[in-house]
Amino acid sequence: MTSADERTGPRAAAETGIDPRTAEPIGEPVPLSAPGEAEAAAQAAARAAPALDRAGRAFRAGLLRAAGEALEARRAEIVRTADGETALGADRLGGELTRTVHQARHFAEVLEEGSYLEAAIDRAGGTPLGPGPDLRRMLVPIGPVAVFGAANFPLAFSVPGGDTVSALAAGCPVVVKAHESHPGTSRLAFEALAGAAERAGAPEGVLGLVHGREAGAALVADPRIRAVGFTGSAAGGRALMDIAAARPDPVPFYGELSGINPVVVTEGAARARAAGIAAGVLASVTGSGGQLCTKPGLVFVPSGPAGDALVEAVREGFAGAGEAVLLNAGVRASYLAAAERLAGLPGVRVLAAGRDGRGAEGFRAGPRLLSVPAGRFGAEAAEECFGPLTVLVRYAGAEELAAALDRVPGSLAAALHCDGETEAEAAAELAGMLRERAGRVVFGGFPTGVRVSWAQTHGGPWPSASAPYSSVGASAIRRFLRPVTWQDAPQWALPAELRDGPAGVPRRVDGRLEPA
Amino acid sequence: MTSADERTGPRAAAETGIDPRTAEPIGEPVPLSAPGEAEAAAQAAARAAPALDRAGRAFRAGLLRAAGEALEARRAEIVRTADGETALGADRLGGELTRTVHQARHFAEVLEEGSYLEAAIDRAGGTPLGPGPDLRRMLVPIGPVAVFGAANFPLAFSVPGGDTVSALAAGCPVVVKAHESHPGTSRLAFEALAGAAERAGAPEGVLGLVHGREAGAALVADPRIRAVGFTGSAAGGRALMDIAAARPDPVPFYGELSGINPVVVTEGAARARAAGIAAGVLASVTGSGGQLCTKPGLVFVPSGPAGDALVEAVREGFAGAGEAVLLNAGVRASYLAAAERLAGLPGVRVLAAGRDGRGAEGFRAGPRLLSVPAGRFGAEAAEECFGPLTVLVRYAGAEELAAALDRVPGSLAAALHCDGETEAEAAAELAGMLRERAGRVVFGGFPTGVRVSWAQTHGGPWPSASAPYSSVGASAIRRFLRPVTWQDAPQWALPAELRDGPAGVPRRVDGRLEPA
Repeated sequence: MTSADERTGPRAAAETGIDPRTAEPIGEPVPLSAPGEAEAAAQAAARAAPALDRAGRAFRAGLLRAAGEALEARRAEIVRTADGETALGADRLGGELTRTVHQARHFAEVLEEGSYLEAAIDRAGGTPLGPGPDLRRMLVPIGPVAVFGAANFPLAFSVPGGDTVSALAAGCPVVVKAHESHPGTSRLAFEALAGAAERAGAPEGVLGLVHGREAGAALVADPRIRAVGFTGSAAGGRALMDIAAARPDPVPFYGELSGINPVVVTEGAARARAAGIAAGVLASVTGSGGQLCTKPGLVFVPSGPAGDALVEAVREGFAGAGEAVLLNAGVRASYLAAAERLAGLPGVRVLAAGRDGRGAEGFRAGPRLLSVPAGRFGAEAAEECFGPLTVLVRYAGAEELAAALDRVPGSLAAALHCDGETEAEAAAELAGMLRERAGRVVFGGFPTGVRVSWAQTHGGPWPSASAPYSSVGASAIRRFLRPVTWQDAPQWALPAELRDGPAGVPRRVDGRLEPA
Repeated sequence: MTSADERTGPRAAAETGIDPRTAEPIGEPVPLSAPGEAEAAAQAAARAAPALDRAGRAFRAGLLRAAGEALEARRAEIVRTADGETALGADRLGGELTRTVHQARHFAEVLEEGSYLEAAIDRAGGTPLGPGPDLRRMLVPIGPVAVFGAANFPLAFSVPGGDTVSALAAGCPVVVKAHESHPGTSRLAFEALAGAAERAGAPEGVLGLVHGREAGAALVADPRIRAVGFTGSAAGGRALMDIAAARPDPVPFYGELSGINPVVVTEGAARARAAGIAAGVLASVTGSGGQLCTKPGLVFVPSGPAGDALVEAVREGFAGAGEAVLLNAGVRASYLAAAERLAGLPGVRVLAAGRDGRGAEGFRAGPRLLSVPAGRFGAEAAEECFGPLTVLVRYAGAEELAAALDRVPGSLAAALHCDGETEAEAAAELAGMLRERAGRVVFGGFPTGVRVSWAQTHGGPWPSASAPYSSVGASAIRRFLRPVTWQDAPQWALPAELRDGPAGVPRRVDGRLEPA
């Protein structure tokens, strides 16, 4: 609209990577998608959808393996580019690429195993209401999917990430909205995937890429897009979720939005393992600059001498920790503002605060360790601060701890350090409370570190996720499928997996689960 | 708001059943829920939730069976009351009660079998990223659920219906918003269920009932309600869905909203089985007064002599069909308005129209048979008309049929009548097109009639349903669950189904599906 343009002035026509270590531009500018480009990508995806579905599970498994190989083949270039744009470091990014390739291969295995189809056959027969028809059910692709890349995982949750490969596995073409923080990495990864798709003979339009927020919003509103996968901030996610919900035809929005990820340390654990827990807290809070959605933002520590000793050990660690280089100027500004806001809350004390660098030195910021008594801990102190900061909540007894946990919002993960021998009953109750507040409960460890496997859950109650599904692990594929039942269908009308005789996938027949 | 009250006048303080055969009040007035009653019911549900979860699968299976027995024990009274409030007839309502009891028992079997938990264990071990932790995943209850009863199924989709029993099976307390068309039936069914719950020792608050639209809207907005199940009109459903989506903490809204449910008849089928198909169309369109969400609202018939003969046979059936007694004054008014609107669309002809009664004779209306050439068939003719009306769409050739099907919105079900021998290729293509537009594809039959079993799907693309899930059949339980993963958990912290050793439920261990 003209009036809006007049207010906001001309928009940038391109996005350019910025080296977080220097705050200087890096790499070539990547043009923002022109108006209509998102719609064209969605249209191409819609055209590709039937062929990608028909191509079958074996084809898609091959496509995912080829995508993994194509990423491996450009490993050095991808890691170097991603490090330039994110400053996450070659080790972390090399590991992230390994994980990304593993994710693609894992979904190839999920396809080959076939349980994800939830195939079921109810043979014709008597029911309490008379003769029943033959019913055969399985999941089919939901249609083209929009995926939003995340700033903090330029690979594993971006163009070649879990949302993309789980949607492709499901048989859904994908249009990715690249994160503006790493346009060069996005381009490289897209080239690798698109090349693999072309060589595999995948239908044209199976993978698209757009740049810019306007293109992203247009994707979510596009009638051809049938579901959205998003990893990012609660505010950005909510805005897109609202677009998805307001469509004439609302579509599922699978957002992974935030995580305060509480860690609870009991008296017994503080007494027995203070040094190890302190080291774990430091590593979990400061790893990757604290820019992980599973970073523990709250650590509940008992009052009294054992807790005091643990707090002192954590404080020493934070005091000795170096600056982090954060992902971009916005992350750094939000981090410093949140840190200041938290430090100003009633009852909050700053136990350690590193120096924060200056703009000329890139997006540097020091880690922060805060502390608050449980009696003064409120919802404001439980708001996520993205970056290397955590708040220690000092509690006196089970009741105060329970009351404080009641004020903690939903999280991706939570962790419990306890002494199962001497604290069995209290520990079981705490484990139950954490289960209510998280999608994953870690025992004797820390929320950071997310294994990619069959039994993983990366999701949790609002505001950590927008829907009761996981974006990591085998079950992530369910987000991009919908059920269909064929009634009294002749063999020719059925998908191969539902025909008579051996089907190569586990099926439920008349209620009884039969292995492949 | 005062101004709104001034505009609309004082609200009814009670809802009273109306006998559709006479338009006269029937039964005692049931007071509308006072302000705060919905919130109190949600609070009681939230208090009951942990105990209902802890009680375990065997307890809940017993509860569901007891609920079925309690309904059976009051069969005569329930059927008589429901017939008085709906005029659906004792046969249909007796069958509906049988189905409702069967649904409850089916979910008892689903609980006992245990696959619905999606239990999975990834043992600790090497991964491409180094040592991986022990992960154990299963689904847990999502929390209190609000259920909205439907006018057209006073039992099977109302207080004791599929949403209620699937949510209770999942371990979620339920607060039902009774449909205003059958308050007496709702009360009776609630008493039966609540009595069974009390005798079984279920926690207080496990089942609640509210009356009135304001109480319903308050439920959807209540922070303790974690998911909503709805069966009803697209407009009513959309309004509630928008409330759920606009919450500070949006919750899943599982709405079953509408169905145009296209039936396609090919040239070969029209030639071979005109009489049977005509009888089926008549029965499927007029059964239960056409007030089924799976009623076929569009029947695609080829042009030419075979199609003409089929149309004539359908027309004769409609011309001889008696009036229906519709559920309430609103349904009758909407039906007559929609019938008039459809009859006025360009190219539409009225082939048969019964008399519509008058108010004094209750909510009577005659069936309608309309016809339109495929070339003039547009989206307006594909809008659901709830009641005994269908539109025959006459098509000349595959291309015209495909173009017309492209204008048909998502449906709960679709049906194909073809000659698999001589039309194999065309029929396969049609079956594929119908699969894109429906949650169930029926071959050689009609969309009405929904078997309650493991492989059923009752749901489909928007606007037939608001989410890619089924509200009928075993998988309906998934709507009221969320995944949790326990990481490196000691045995005492795990649910029974995830502990070492035999668990009594199928589990996926290191990716391999193991029977119970």
